[in-house]
Amino acid sequence: MTKSRGIEEGIRVAVSTVILTLRRETEEPRIALPLVRRIRDPHRDCWALPGGWLDPRESLEEAAARTLAETTGLAPSYLEQLYAFGAVNRSPGRVVSVVYWALLRPDTVDALGAQSTAPHDAAGAAPENVAWYDASDLPPLAFDHAQIIDYALWRLRNKVGYSRVAQGFLPPEFTLAELREAYETILGRRLDPANFRRQVESAGNLVPTDAFRTGSHRPARLYRNDTDVELADRGPLAPEETRTS
Amino acid sequence: MTKSRGIEEGIRVAVSTVILTLRRETEEPRIALPLVRRIRDPHRDCWALPGGWLDPRESLEEAAARTLAETTGLAPSYLEQLYAFGAVNRSPGRVVSVVYWALLRPDTVDALGAQSTAPHDAAGAAPENVAWYDASDLPPLAFDHAQIIDYALWRLRNKVGYSRVAQGFLPPEFTLAELREAYETILGRRLDPANFRRQVESAGNLVPTDAFRTGSHRPARLYRNDTDVELADRGPLAPEETRTS
Repeated sequence: MTKSRGIEEGIRVAVSTVILTLRRETEEPRIALPLVRRIRDPHRDCWALPGGWLDPRESLEEAAARTLAETTGLAPSYLEQLYAFGAVNRSPGRVVSVVYWALLRPDTVDALGAQSTAPHDAAGAAPENVAWYDASDLPPLAFDHAQIIDYALWRLRNKVGYSRVAQGFLPPEFTLAELREAYETILGRRLDPANFRRQVESAGNLVPTDAFRTGSHRPARLYRNDTDVELADRGPLAPEETRTS
Repeated sequence: MTKSRGIEEGIRVAVSTVILTLRRETEEPRIALPLVRRIRDPHRDCWALPGGWLDPRESLEEAAARTLAETTGLAPSYLEQLYAFGAVNRSPGRVVSVVYWALLRPDTVDALGAQSTAPHDAAGAAPENVAWYDASDLPPLAFDHAQIIDYALWRLRNKVGYSRVAQGFLPPEFTLAELREAYETILGRRLDPANFRRQVESAGNLVPTDAFRTGSHRPARLYRNDTDVELADRGPLAPEETRTS
């Protein structure tokens, strides 16, 4: 079908966003993301990443931010371009999708009323046909969106090794145990608490506060990000790309 | 001018490639890249990255490889998507440029007859209006291509910290001093030879050969890449993205 198309038929540009957050309702935190149920062909009734056509009057990043706002009503704590996907047969028409990925703090997601790990329609201002899914238990996905999500999770796992991107999953103040838990969930393995504390403290990017988390365990000091340092160094693109909530 | 355009006028997709190599004619190696002189408006007579419109029948990566072949006649030792640039006013018409970056081994560049660091038209099969420029001494560039090159050089500097991408600048066999020199040129600073040797040897990605480089210094053992390991881990995208010459 696509073989017979000529150059003159053109190529369309879409923007999609992989929006990741950490859900903590259960004993084990999990990475979750919102998906949108398609109401049109192709792939009608399949789930897809939030996204839409690029408007000629908006930049790629503006389109990604608009998509995110339309889906969740929220601004992400970290937004970065992931990759441009442009395989010839990824869609019936020729579509290049520029995909962004974003991290949402769980506290802002909770405000949406989207706490359940079971898929459900988002409450409030969010559009219908949006549901949050556990990243390890996804429904059938439209187009190449399963591959795109795989790649986003891989990029996240890699990026925690050389940036502070895991802090995009945490509220403004957090304990070292909560930070370690975010790393463990991203990496899919346990980290030694004492080694983790040493590494984080020697990196010097956390600011200890005077507050403590109290509860069933002994009080744990709360830390916050050093906001003078970006969560990940994006070099010459930083001024355009920075979005912090 | 762009403000009055409607959505229906559409968006065009271009693919460009930043092709980097290491030039060794002088005492200090330098990073060099080929540029193409524009023969049409806009930006006529300015220099630009090699590139062109995406053909609907080719993937983004095929378009990047075609561009590279048309410019230099060669396949890169490393080719990776850099970023999609899509600011609204980066071109008179709305153009999203998906940019790739490639590393070329100096020995393959030499075969082109393009050895001089001074700009000149490439010899042989390469098209006219192509010249190699020192990355630290670029001519006036069309569109946002100066920003794109800045970003590519920044990505290269970052990537040497967590991958073996510098080896994309070296012939199949090389000495540790040549590898260190490649790192030093990319990073713009000297590295301690003994520390460098220890780090490279402990990483275990180099295979010592039985051959030695002889000349004015004492003989130095030649190493080659461990070709079982990719120059940089690209995760789920690797099967599609891998191109090695």
